[in-house]
Amino acid sequence: MYDVLVIGAGAAGLTAAIYTARKKLKTLVVGVDVGGQMNLTSHIENYPGTPAMTGPALMKLFQEQAVQFGAELVIGKIAKVEKGANWGFVSTMTNGEKIESKTVILAFGLVPNMLEVPGEDQFFGKGVSTCVTCDGPLYKGRAVAIVGGGNSAVEGLLEVANYCTKVYSIHRRDKYTADPVTLERLQKAQNVEFVKNTVVVEIKGDLGIKSIVVEDLATKQKREIPVQAVFVQIGHKADTSLVKSLVQLSPKNEVAIDDRCRTNIEGVFAAGDCTTIAFKQTVISAGEGAKAGLECARFLSGGKGITIDWS
Amino acid sequence: MYDVLVIGAGAAGLTAAIYTARKKLKTLVVGVDVGGQMNLTSHIENYPGTPAMTGPALMKLFQEQAVQFGAELVIGKIAKVEKGANWGFVSTMTNGEKIESKTVILAFGLVPNMLEVPGEDQFFGKGVSTCVTCDGPLYKGRAVAIVGGGNSAVEGLLEVANYCTKVYSIHRRDKYTADPVTLERLQKAQNVEFVKNTVVVEIKGDLGIKSIVVEDLATKQKREIPVQAVFVQIGHKADTSLVKSLVQLSPKNEVAIDDRCRTNIEGVFAAGDCTTIAFKQTVISAGEGAKAGLECARFLSGGKGITIDWS
Repeated sequence: MYDVLVIGAGAAGLTAAIYTARKKLKTLVVGVDVGGQMNLTSHIENYPGTPAMTGPALMKLFQEQAVQFGAELVIGKIAKVEKGANWGFVSTMTNGEKIESKTVILAFGLVPNMLEVPGEDQFFGKGVSTCVTCDGPLYKGRAVAIVGGGNSAVEGLLEVANYCTKVYSIHRRDKYTADPVTLERLQKAQNVEFVKNTVVVEIKGDLGIKSIVVEDLATKQKREIPVQAVFVQIGHKADTSLVKSLVQLSPKNEVAIDDRCRTNIEGVFAAGDCTTIAFKQTVISAGEGAKAGLECARFLSGGKGITIDWS
Repeated sequence: MYDVLVIGAGAAGLTAAIYTARKKLKTLVVGVDVGGQMNLTSHIENYPGTPAMTGPALMKLFQEQAVQFGAELVIGKIAKVEKGANWGFVSTMTNGEKIESKTVILAFGLVPNMLEVPGEDQFFGKGVSTCVTCDGPLYKGRAVAIVGGGNSAVEGLLEVANYCTKVYSIHRRDKYTADPVTLERLQKAQNVEFVKNTVVVEIKGDLGIKSIVVEDLATKQKREIPVQAVFVQIGHKADTSLVKSLVQLSPKNEVAIDDRCRTNIEGVFAAGDCTTIAFKQTVISAGEGAKAGLECARFLSGGKGITIDWS
């Protein structure tokens, strides 16, 4: 029996664990990986207090702190969270293992949106990727496409432009929404071709990808572009199936929370990108994780008043 | 004319500036110091992503990032923030200088609570201090008292126990509210005397402090304890006088905000410990600062929809 089960090992989950473990609560973190969406980031420079580094490197630091303070960490996937027979919660992992805990902190983040076009499933892991940092280097000296116009897409462009011969930026809109400082850097990349107002309609190949077919949204004209990889960077969505019969969700399928990271179910807290919070940023998720951890500790101590930490 | 005036240069204010500067908004940060309450922390180990360090060292890292991205930083005190004649805001510094800005982010934190007993004013800066990290080393080899029972007080005890001959921990309650891991460390300190359920009623001395008079809250018995310094670590309060006629305040005198760090006045945002937020922690203030910065940028860009940053 754990005091706290944290589901998700990204910025929110690991920070929640840092806080509950420091309160000497028996804390288990279960995540499909360590790092969550930060694993998809090759370069983070806006997390206060740390120099620019890769997403996975920053998350490794979070992990080390959580473990140092006594949290346990297991890689695995929770399929379902239910109320216990009398009290507390029983969570079932996809391997059938059950975990009992007095409280649960939901911090499982988001899953990437996919293109949902012919060829995408077939070539997933064989050229189609949602992680530039992980898979970009496999296509050194080749031509690749990156789909999307936000920070992740543009950071990805900057990365692969360093080692790919040609990079196609496929964006359904005319304007990029990445931060201006990031866009400025992109202007120096010589080997990037911007294909705006355009969507991917098919991914073609045999053993690997050979080309993508794109369509101009205005002219409806199609064009085939020879690439060996497609990086899909078009945002994320919440996969809240594991708690859909437990807690209240928003119309956008996010876990509804109040300003203390409480869900509508006593003993269940939530933090970060899987919640109704308006902003998706590492430092914001970390802050929310700290709130969830502190509120969870308050709940377990009987909830009598709030011990404000003036440290 | 600045796009953004950030008032306060602690975790919330500096993070807000990191975010607005990255959006290429002309940003000025005005703070009475750099670091805010973190300057009072000798050891922070629960800020995710960084190793244990002093509060000022961590805040220096925040500052460097804000400046690196283009924020300007001025040390000074804002006396009043008012709406401009037509639009925007005019802020007046205590030296009379005026600053015009399109928006304002309030992040001026809290000020320390004082004992309000005879001798406190007289010996402030001559033995009475609210900063163990700053002033503790001056009393190496002497006896000192630390008043309070939270993390700041106990961290302070741990610090001065290393170099003071004797440390008196004066606490009005029986239980300490510091984190258990911190309290565990305290048990090893041999030269700390715990004086619980007790308050300081007077501070005595001549050129410097010679003793404090304390009173047991149960027995009403008084006792004189010979010390050369008194560190007051009994929490903080919001000093919102500079905006009291501008924005809505809570009954506790905090700036009222919504979940996007908006105040009731358009163009004025607030973040961190000076707001109605329930938790006072560095990482939480940093997260709130990021929210305020992003929401401010959204407001200045016309507020049309929300550009979610998926980075």
